[in-house]
Amino acid sequence: MSDEFFSELKSASPIQDYLQYLHDKFKSINDGEVASYIPELATADPNWFGISIVTMDGHLYEVGDTRIPFTIQSISKPFVYGLALEDHGRTDVLNKIGVEPSGEAFNSISLRPETGQPFNPMINAGAIAATGLVEGHTPDLQFQRILDLFHHYTGHPVEVDERVYQSESSTGHRNRAIAYMLRNFDIIQDDPSPILENYFKQCSISVTGNDLAVIAGTLANAGINPLNGRRAIRSEYVENVLSIMGTCGMYDYAGEWIYRVGMPAKSGVAGGIVAVLPGQLGIGIYSPPLDPKGNSVRGIQTCHQLSMDFNLHMFNVPHSTQSVIRTSYWGSELGSDRVRPLEERLYLKKSASKILVYELQGDLNFSTAEIVVRKINESFKSFEFLVINLKRILHIDESACKLFLSLYLRMKGMNKTLIFSESSQHRLLQRIFKANMNDSFPTKLFIDSHAAALEVCENTLLLGHSGQYGGIREQVLAKHEFLADLSPDEMSIVEAMMKPQSFEKDQEIVAAGSIADEIFLLTSGTVTVCISLPDGRLNRLASFSAGVTFGELAMGGANKRSASVYADTEVECFTLSLEDLDQLEKDHPAIQCKLLRNVLRLTTNRLESANRSIGALL
Amino acid sequence: MSDEFFSELKSASPIQDYLQYLHDKFKSINDGEVASYIPELATADPNWFGISIVTMDGHLYEVGDTRIPFTIQSISKPFVYGLALEDHGRTDVLNKIGVEPSGEAFNSISLRPETGQPFNPMINAGAIAATGLVEGHTPDLQFQRILDLFHHYTGHPVEVDERVYQSESSTGHRNRAIAYMLRNFDIIQDDPSPILENYFKQCSISVTGNDLAVIAGTLANAGINPLNGRRAIRSEYVENVLSIMGTCGMYDYAGEWIYRVGMPAKSGVAGGIVAVLPGQLGIGIYSPPLDPKGNSVRGIQTCHQLSMDFNLHMFNVPHSTQSVIRTSYWGSELGSDRVRPLEERLYLKKSASKILVYELQGDLNFSTAEIVVRKINESFKSFEFLVINLKRILHIDESACKLFLSLYLRMKGMNKTLIFSESSQHRLLQRIFKANMNDSFPTKLFIDSHAAALEVCENTLLLGHSGQYGGIREQVLAKHEFLADLSPDEMSIVEAMMKPQSFEKDQEIVAAGSIADEIFLLTSGTVTVCISLPDGRLNRLASFSAGVTFGELAMGGANKRSASVYADTEVECFTLSLEDLDQLEKDHPAIQCKLLRNVLRLTTNRLESANRSIGALL
Repeated sequence: MSDEFFSELKSASPIQDYLQYLHDKFKSINDGEVASYIPELATADPNWFGISIVTMDGHLYEVGDTRIPFTIQSISKPFVYGLALEDHGRTDVLNKIGVEPSGEAFNSISLRPETGQPFNPMINAGAIAATGLVEGHTPDLQFQRILDLFHHYTGHPVEVDERVYQSESSTGHRNRAIAYMLRNFDIIQDDPSPILENYFKQCSISVTGNDLAVIAGTLANAGINPLNGRRAIRSEYVENVLSIMGTCGMYDYAGEWIYRVGMPAKSGVAGGIVAVLPGQLGIGIYSPPLDPKGNSVRGIQTCHQLSMDFNLHMFNVPHSTQSVIRTSYWGSELGSDRVRPLEERLYLKKSASKILVYELQGDLNFSTAEIVVRKINESFKSFEFLVINLKRILHIDESACKLFLSLYLRMKGMNKTLIFSESSQHRLLQRIFKANMNDSFPTKLFIDSHAAALEVCENTLLLGHSGQYGGIREQVLAKHEFLADLSPDEMSIVEAMMKPQSFEKDQEIVAAGSIADEIFLLTSGTVTVCISLPDGRLNRLASFSAGVTFGELAMGGANKRSASVYADTEVECFTLSLEDLDQLEKDHPAIQCKLLRNVLRLTTNRLESANRSIGALL
Repeated sequence: MSDEFFSELKSASPIQDYLQYLHDKFKSINDGEVASYIPELATADPNWFGISIVTMDGHLYEVGDTRIPFTIQSISKPFVYGLALEDHGRTDVLNKIGVEPSGEAFNSISLRPETGQPFNPMINAGAIAATGLVEGHTPDLQFQRILDLFHHYTGHPVEVDERVYQSESSTGHRNRAIAYMLRNFDIIQDDPSPILENYFKQCSISVTGNDLAVIAGTLANAGINPLNGRRAIRSEYVENVLSIMGTCGMYDYAGEWIYRVGMPAKSGVAGGIVAVLPGQLGIGIYSPPLDPKGNSVRGIQTCHQLSMDFNLHMFNVPHSTQSVIRTSYWGSELGSDRVRPLEERLYLKKSASKILVYELQGDLNFSTAEIVVRKINESFKSFEFLVINLKRILHIDESACKLFLSLYLRMKGMNKTLIFSESSQHRLLQRIFKANMNDSFPTKLFIDSHAAALEVCENTLLLGHSGQYGGIREQVLAKHEFLADLSPDEMSIVEAMMKPQSFEKDQEIVAAGSIADEIFLLTSGTVTVCISLPDGRLNRLASFSAGVTFGELAMGGANKRSASVYADTEVECFTLSLEDLDQLEKDHPAIQCKLLRNVLRLTTNRLESANRSIGALL
């Protein structure tokens, strides 16, 4: 892409600007001839030139003559072939129609001499055979399914250009010859005439350049129309349609097209080209003048330039230096967010080194999951618990799921625990695990909160150690850190000011945004603190066990609660109001000073822990 | 992949297990014939069968006969073609050798009737022409460059199997005929004999199945050998070599191979196959029995099964639902980590809504960067500052850089500020920006810390408002929040206990891990707090302006400093030791109580801010 483009920004969008620049650059090309074998095609204006691009989130860019209707012609071939695959499956279709490039022109007969099998579905012989494979009780119903197909691909009903169809039908002697050759070899097993008429109609379906971009975008988007989110072809056949377009889509220019442009594509004799960059873009070009091989001259130039300028060649895969493993650490280095009594903290400080955590990032496919599984295997002897955090994983494919399943089975055989945290959005992973272990599906294999996953591991360690952990134990008020250093007399004064309260499981104890006017001393049960993220999601911030104080930020001047607190279990606690604390300051300043010091100690602990969390998250 | 595989885990690695399973499954196939046109090939044991896979981080999996030497034969063709591209460039090479699949067998003559140009470099005619294009003053030097080429691809010196070479040379009449046809059309312009001999030698280079996997892995890895990290082919030609392998690599099975297996590949008559999954894997198979098209029977079965079981087809691109935009927010919702005096906080609370932050994730290429630029354009009128956080971006390609450059130019024209934060590892982006704006490169376009980037925006807003910001202003001790609510008498008592200290720019004020025995009241200059992350990186946690207290966690019982503090500028401050504070508690408990309350308020503020940061980071 030249500096000339960057020096003159015209619109708000650099892509719109760029496409305009491409259009300006190539519109003056006057090479090529408009197809003239039927009079309807010959009337096309050779100056017509439209560029359309559809993104995977459904945005359409268009420049030039992108809304002029023209007939789809050969561009229909790969899509009707996809319909034949859906109707009959790969094996049956491959028995009728080959998938080898012929190196010959589009209208060559190209049947294998022994079997009569057409070389591939992009030459007319193979395309007619594919049309014959479309299911339906009558030829009209068969054709209705082809119309429905392009309705799904374009997102709107499509129609046949009757005049083009009549011309195609009345001049299609060569295609009639091909159809009877196919009949001769039993590739077509019925009367070839209605199949041929459907083929002529299919080629005469009227589309625009914008339609072509959406059609291409649907293949790029694994078969789902990116504008309306509806499926046009089952995803398992998308790779076959793209393969055919990749090897045979551009007639006898197919090899050079892949070499130079590097996208599966298909052209039509009316001047259309669809090009697909899988997972990224759908491109539709319309410009009637054709080169001697039957491809749109401006279409080829445009796609070539676009591919070069933006590295769109499908084999332009960068050398990646980033690992799918973002970081890994032991549970002793960074624990769950449960605020625990001292003795539990001390025990976990040692034993949590049996918990191994892997935080992953990017996409998980065979090759990236392989690295993860291999690295985990290297420290297999050192851990009893493995937590794999999937939060930064954008996509997991089936093969990665299978590798994780095999890891799980191996760990299970050795009594080790595997947990996937932040895994709720990865349904394929859950589905594959469930499908492969119907009777023995562990309840805690997928846990949404990473901290909760760590806590499960820690609690299991604590249970193994002492048969209990903070979450299920009662704690007497006198042992609360909030009341440390008080003399028995001072303790009675403070206890007298406190009110016992109880809460049901799941009850809201503190509402975010409410007035912060009391502090809570938890004596039985556990609670969880949640905050609302800017995007509206609710996120677990910490959880507290019996023996722990919460809401104490009120003493530090917090006016409103910054987070909500929910009871995880039945909860018993004592509350002390700010009003009573103010009274305490007047009546017993020494007590108040001790309480302030205790709260400052708690707050300082939590700030240090928060800073450690930030460090781990950075 | 069947359940039978998962039910029996044998080794530590599921991939090793799987390859063993594949090997067991296909070793009993007895179809195919070992090549016998020369006696040396006919001696191969038809039972030999090896599977090798190389990952992009250089791990080699191997099962079976992966270390038996055999001759590379036609597998040499795409690599020598790549060398010809390096020596002459695409245009010259395309003038001599086409890139169209011929649909014909490997040894067909397949020259274009008018020009004598071979159809493609994978048939013998094109391969001999490519060997003729390798530069060198003498035929021996030319061949030495071919040996060096395979040294780079395999990672070790390679040798010619002299007996195979002698046989090839003495029976290669058909290839001689082809070479003289090429000479006749001036595709070869010198004596064809030495070129033919080099071609025979090239085909007789001895390799193993493991070598083939490494060779394939090098192409998959954008031309860099994944075992030793050294380049074997310039990355710009990798896409061309892969395109040729994709369309013509498997003789007249090329179309079906792409359709079923979906990887660029090349086979050789000795029974080798290389297959490349770009960006992911290199595969090498060795098994001598060939099908009638000249491809290893077990090799094809193995690759087909492997591709199906692990979705390795190159057009199996999943429908992605994850956006490259992780989150976006305004500077008023989440600010920098600078702890500022109250008046600055109040001003920024309103005006920081002119700062827009985008946090991105995943890979940035044309199609994902397009979405980012388009979304930013939608709120173009609302922001003056745009911070794009690249921390979670794993890779940026050139086209994404160009789109960001055009965004920058548009913003510059409207006096808006763009900053890329966490951008230090993205050198290509920096290089492309620098290359396109040599004289006017803004110093603060790339900032490593995201918080520092936000601070630059905030400081610019404050400077525009009052002509100064906290960082450059002095603050009298009496206004410190730490000393709030003290009476003048109490203030004099505390001031008398304080010691003035000064620090040079960049001096360490507090060392992480040191004893926490004093607190600091900053009166002039700014300081930055840094923590060491578990992986050893140093990370900025916060920065403090004059008027702010730090080190106060000591009062809450912190024994050791959890972070280091550095002077950003010349710094003046007062310190108060814990020892003096203890003395204060005895002599003046009321003062101590006020100070505790003040510190508790500061700590509470910071904890709330830390919790907000955690919320934003989650």
